Amino acid sequence: MDDPKPWLTLARVPGLHAGRLADAAGSPLAWLADSRSRLAQQGFGEVAITALHNPDLRGLDRDEKWLAGPCRCLVTWGSASYPPLLAAIPDAPLVLFVEGAVAALSLPQLAIVGSRNPTQLGRETAEQFARHLTAAGLAITSGLALGIDAASHRGALQAGGWTVAVLGCGPDTIYPRENAALAEAVAAHGALVSDLPTGTPPLKQHFPRRNRIISGLSVGTLVVEAALQSGSLITARLAAEQGREVFAIPGSIHNPMARGCHRLLRQGAQLVETADDVFAELGALLGGFRAQAQSEAPDAQRVSGPKLDKDYEILLDALGFAPASIDSLVARSGLAADAVASMLLILELDGRVAQQPGGSYCRRLAGK
Amino acid sequence: MDDPKPWLTLARVPGLHAGRLADAAGSPLAWLADSRSRLAQQGFGEVAITALHNPDLRGLDRDEKWLAGPCRCLVTWGSASYPPLLAAIPDAPLVLFVEGAVAALSLPQLAIVGSRNPTQLGRETAEQFARHLTAAGLAITSGLALGIDAASHRGALQAGGWTVAVLGCGPDTIYPRENAALAEAVAAHGALVSDLPTGTPPLKQHFPRRNRIISGLSVGTLVVEAALQSGSLITARLAAEQGREVFAIPGSIHNPMARGCHRLLRQGAQLVETADDVFAELGALLGGFRAQAQSEAPDAQRVSGPKLDKDYEILLDALGFAPASIDSLVARSGLAADAVASMLLILELDGRVAQQPGGSYCRRLAGK
Repeated sequence: MDDPKPWLTLARVPGLHAGRLADAAGSPLAWLADSRSRLAQQGFGEVAITALHNPDLRGLDRDEKWLAGPCRCLVTWGSASYPPLLAAIPDAPLVLFVEGAVAALSLPQLAIVGSRNPTQLGRETAEQFARHLTAAGLAITSGLALGIDAASHRGALQAGGWTVAVLGCGPDTIYPRENAALAEAVAAHGALVSDLPTGTPPLKQHFPRRNRIISGLSVGTLVVEAALQSGSLITARLAAEQGREVFAIPGSIHNPMARGCHRLLRQGAQLVETADDVFAELGALLGGFRAQAQSEAPDAQRVSGPKLDKDYEILLDALGFAPASIDSLVARSGLAADAVASMLLILELDGRVAQQPGGSYCRRLAGK
Repeated sequence: MDDPKPWLTLARVPGLHAGRLADAAGSPLAWLADSRSRLAQQGFGEVAITALHNPDLRGLDRDEKWLAGPCRCLVTWGSASYPPLLAAIPDAPLVLFVEGAVAALSLPQLAIVGSRNPTQLGRETAEQFARHLTAAGLAITSGLALGIDAASHRGALQAGGWTVAVLGCGPDTIYPRENAALAEAVAAHGALVSDLPTGTPPLKQHFPRRNRIISGLSVGTLVVEAALQSGSLITARLAAEQGREVFAIPGSIHNPMARGCHRLLRQGAQLVETADDVFAELGALLGGFRAQAQSEAPDAQRVSGPKLDKDYEILLDALGFAPASIDSLVARSGLAADAVASMLLILELDGRVAQQPGGSYCRRLAGK
């Protein structure tokens, strides 16, 4: 690109996107040369026309300074590096500020999103799914938020895979600050992306706009844990409107963070228990990835750690997912009281169960 | 009924049911007078013909002795007390041995079924749903098995409601023995039912036959927790084939007892989070019950006990459904460390949280 200024000008026009083009093959740069009256004829309002004709020079300058940094670039509408799935959505951004590997944007990718305040198990589930899906060749896309988003990026990074983070602010702002180190890692093993120019703060109203890019880049969106009123449900709705798959992980009805997922399931989202469920659904779309996935998919054993001896399995089955006394474990498992006591000790040392005040036992996540 | 013997004879003919009648309005007793060749023309096999023409007199005698006991009766095909929903299934039994209130069989009822070895939370969930649905006027039907079945009967009894238990053995056998006291209570506040004659042991092959009666008596079947290979899924399939509603409660993907429910949800079962979800779906079918249900339905607060002060809600939300340290609870809740510590103490005394070895806290079910 010779001069990024015309594109940067477009990036600063409120409400501008590829859907405004009369012809998707035409260049949006033509708008910059159009007269006030011709722009008005095309439906542009006062604010947009002024922004097109009177660029914010100080803003453009800041954008260019940001672009001069290492591994940064501008991906523009119609260029070869513009991600094809994103180009297919009706309100595709005209400009993407990218830090990291531009090619990562065009990888087959799955969005994993969810609550900023998930349960610990939800966080670990997101991480595990991201790890397994990444290992099978999918890139993982999310929004760099606390909670499920961060866990998803982290899982992908742990597996040495690609991950893409879409920001709800300008590319020169990392929000939330807690995820600054994570953002750096994402830029090194994938890409940070924003369609908002530099200097744009992370305002609440930017997030639905950010979410359409998350779902738009992806073949599908997986919601791990989400409350009923949450941005994740917006991302899921946008994915459905964009004709992409929506996946949701069910949870206990006693876990409020499962409510959003249950609503999606009622609305027709695909119920997902393992990474393989995702591949089974995407099947044809991903072709080659599936065979790999089947050997990589986290089945029940994988999710709950390495396989145990049969008696230990029986004991853990008897324990279930709520506290239980030794007596009731003896009764439920059919094992001898002595054996149960010594097995519980070993399971406790192994970090698989914990003793509670009063002497009852409850399960812990394997290896935690 | 003058002489029960002809009906008792029919009850002992293998494979006989109302679907074999050429005309549903005709009496099956006519078969007893039919000649061997006429029966053969109607498709009866050797074994059935012999059973029709040569009754097991000792068996009939035992049946009559059983019927002579208190609160026992025989409900026969075509009689006024035959439950109308059960009459609508294609393989309706010709004879029902009933102990308790015959009228209970014709009440609008919901089947609640599930694993014989559920998690503690699953058991409590079944009990709570049964309690709330009963309070809104539905009878609860199940199979008197250990686990979810027993919890469902118990929940109905706790709420002072009606409950119906269908046996997979003759009416003179109570199986499993652990539920003998429960069976007595069911007979006193509802009915024990079997289409199998006295002396029939609880063999595995009788259970699908029993399950068709459970689903056939009911407007719908709710599966609370079930493994992938389980009788509960058979009951659900039979309910669907009988044109009845199938409801399933989702669970954590880390809980193997949720797998059966998740399979049903994939196959189109209605996802249920609260008792009100059941009523919303049955709506028109149950008419008047619904209004009551809305005031009775266990919403999120009800399921987790009485409503707490806002700060306690915030703290429990921060705790989620996995162990957490005080530090992380302070960070997540935004409450002062002092306040968190004293609130945790109160929640612990209240039985809502438990401290684990190492000092982390985990949630307990309200009031347990």
